[in-house]
Amino acid sequence: MSGACGSQLAKDVNELKAMVKAQNKRIDKLIKHINEGCEAKEEVQLESTMTGLNPYIECLNPDILYHLNLSTDTTDFPKVFGDVRFVCLGGTPSRMHKFANFIMKEIGLKMNSSVQLKDLAEDAHRYALYKVGPVLCASHGIGGPSISIVLHELIKLVHHAKCQNPIFIRMGTCGGIGVEPGTVVITSEALDGQLRPVYEVVVQTTPELRPTKLDADLAKDLKSLSDPCCDGFDVIIGKTLCANDFYEGQSRLDGAFCDYTSAKKMEFLSRISHAGVVNMEMESSAFAAITSQAGIKAAVICVAIINRLEGDQISAPEERLTEWNSRPQILVGRYMRKVLYSEDCTDEDTCDCAGGDQTQPTE
Amino acid sequence: MSGACGSQLAKDVNELKAMVKAQNKRIDKLIKHINEGCEAKEEVQLESTMTGLNPYIECLNPDILYHLNLSTDTTDFPKVFGDVRFVCLGGTPSRMHKFANFIMKEIGLKMNSSVQLKDLAEDAHRYALYKVGPVLCASHGIGGPSISIVLHELIKLVHHAKCQNPIFIRMGTCGGIGVEPGTVVITSEALDGQLRPVYEVVVQTTPELRPTKLDADLAKDLKSLSDPCCDGFDVIIGKTLCANDFYEGQSRLDGAFCDYTSAKKMEFLSRISHAGVVNMEMESSAFAAITSQAGIKAAVICVAIINRLEGDQISAPEERLTEWNSRPQILVGRYMRKVLYSEDCTDEDTCDCAGGDQTQPTE
Repeated sequence: MSGACGSQLAKDVNELKAMVKAQNKRIDKLIKHINEGCEAKEEVQLESTMTGLNPYIECLNPDILYHLNLSTDTTDFPKVFGDVRFVCLGGTPSRMHKFANFIMKEIGLKMNSSVQLKDLAEDAHRYALYKVGPVLCASHGIGGPSISIVLHELIKLVHHAKCQNPIFIRMGTCGGIGVEPGTVVITSEALDGQLRPVYEVVVQTTPELRPTKLDADLAKDLKSLSDPCCDGFDVIIGKTLCANDFYEGQSRLDGAFCDYTSAKKMEFLSRISHAGVVNMEMESSAFAAITSQAGIKAAVICVAIINRLEGDQISAPEERLTEWNSRPQILVGRYMRKVLYSEDCTDEDTCDCAGGDQTQPTE
Repeated sequence: MSGACGSQLAKDVNELKAMVKAQNKRIDKLIKHINEGCEAKEEVQLESTMTGLNPYIECLNPDILYHLNLSTDTTDFPKVFGDVRFVCLGGTPSRMHKFANFIMKEIGLKMNSSVQLKDLAEDAHRYALYKVGPVLCASHGIGGPSISIVLHELIKLVHHAKCQNPIFIRMGTCGGIGVEPGTVVITSEALDGQLRPVYEVVVQTTPELRPTKLDADLAKDLKSLSDPCCDGFDVIIGKTLCANDFYEGQSRLDGAFCDYTSAKKMEFLSRISHAGVVNMEMESSAFAAITSQAGIKAAVICVAIINRLEGDQISAPEERLTEWNSRPQILVGRYMRKVLYSEDCTDEDTCDCAGGDQTQPTE
């Protein structure tokens, strides 16, 4: 049996194992439900768990989430979205479509082969939004202003739906600083271009600097689910520089403009590396500030697709990028299984050190 | 004949007139070419007309325009893009797809009925890019960071292709300030959230404030092509506030967060109105700063889809929004015909005051 064949087989076996385990958990839950009987329980009136929200929201009748093409007068939010426990975000609609289909398998859900997931925000043409059981999957575009809109509307969505402490996770790609391409980076602290742990919102001409807090326990939990020996990739926790610009803002030499020298670029990268920065991307500070403002447990988990100490242009082949893209998703899938089914995802059952790859989102 | 019928007929007649005129211009050019003979002329070596560009670009071999999925080693830029004279940008891929098909008719080009326009950047999953003869049509997403990436790469594209003085135009939607919804607003000056005519780029931790210049003549030219009596909508020129945020940054009361009162919001809107601001959107300052830095003649032309003095939520029906969206495109189409075929678009031939609508981009 060839290596590729063995690796594919191991992947298939792991995928099946994960599905069987997830199904077992669901069966356990059903048995528990049957044992406990079917007496009508007093219905608990749930309340939104969001904090610090806009008091005017309660006066909006209807509330139109314009960029998601949803409105409280045409959608029963508690009924449609009340079971949401995870809100996952990523840059592009296509990536989130793949993730939605991947996570469906990971958490043991199935879909009739004659249907497909629907993009609930399709008619607004701006963001993609998929719902897979307790998981919402949304695209956020590029940069703080773009992710801020979808976050405002997703937060209002989970608020109207009275979701109970939903966890928000941004998954993406990034440039590593002294980090091998393919490494997964979980953000400990999101810094702005001036290396401050803040996100600026200008309110009525006054700049307000808001703290970019992320949940340290969630970051550790995600990291704990990695197994470099089996997974074939490392996971690290470190500071993230969030730039408002891909080229000059990240000190690249390949943008349309560049007023600095190659030596100055290296000096800058070395300086931020010494300050503990391990990667750069463009959404973490807005994401961290907005989620923490609403009291949401949140994490940013990205895969490095380049080591910026070695270059600027992203030239990895498509297949490699696709495989790297799947890595944060694999950890997030394990985390969800753990939360939903109290599953220990690092036990030997799910790790086949002889075999190679884990289940991966398909292309 | 009913009013709707008459209006449709007038629209069809105008569309045909525009097509015939555009074809006549092409025939004139062909006749000129035949009269001048076919002797081989000395080939003129064209140079890029971009100014102030990054000197390192010349060292990039290949130059990978990552977010457009283009590379100088797989695409012959002068051959494929050398004829580009207009680069039009708008928020969403779907809007730019519609615009590309609309502008094709407007400038008298045709496509075999068995083919369709190809999104040249599709495989990068981030922006849409269509080419219609001398017109490039690109989507830019939401906010400064998103539009800045596509502008860096489009500027490198026209530079590598040695395009001659291409004109860049951003078309979009906006919130009007004391402006009737449906009004088209051409930006005279793009201001940031602090009402400064600058765009901030943080380079190696230092914020740089770059001027947001736009071409005043181009703005006037575009306005001069409107005819409120026939078109059924007004076109104004005024200052634009470019916010980094749709909700708090634009002083809305319907975001997830809001620390100000309704009275404070109205006070702010009144203040910016007195300062000459007629609309708010989210990309003009980055667009103006980046294009002017490269010496590009550029304009921002948006349609107001709400009057912010009267509310925050966008509740106009889909068909109304679609019709409004077409208005900036109609003016841009006329401008292109004028530039390409020296056509006077405001002569009586193209205006049927008795009939109503002009040609409109189809849904």
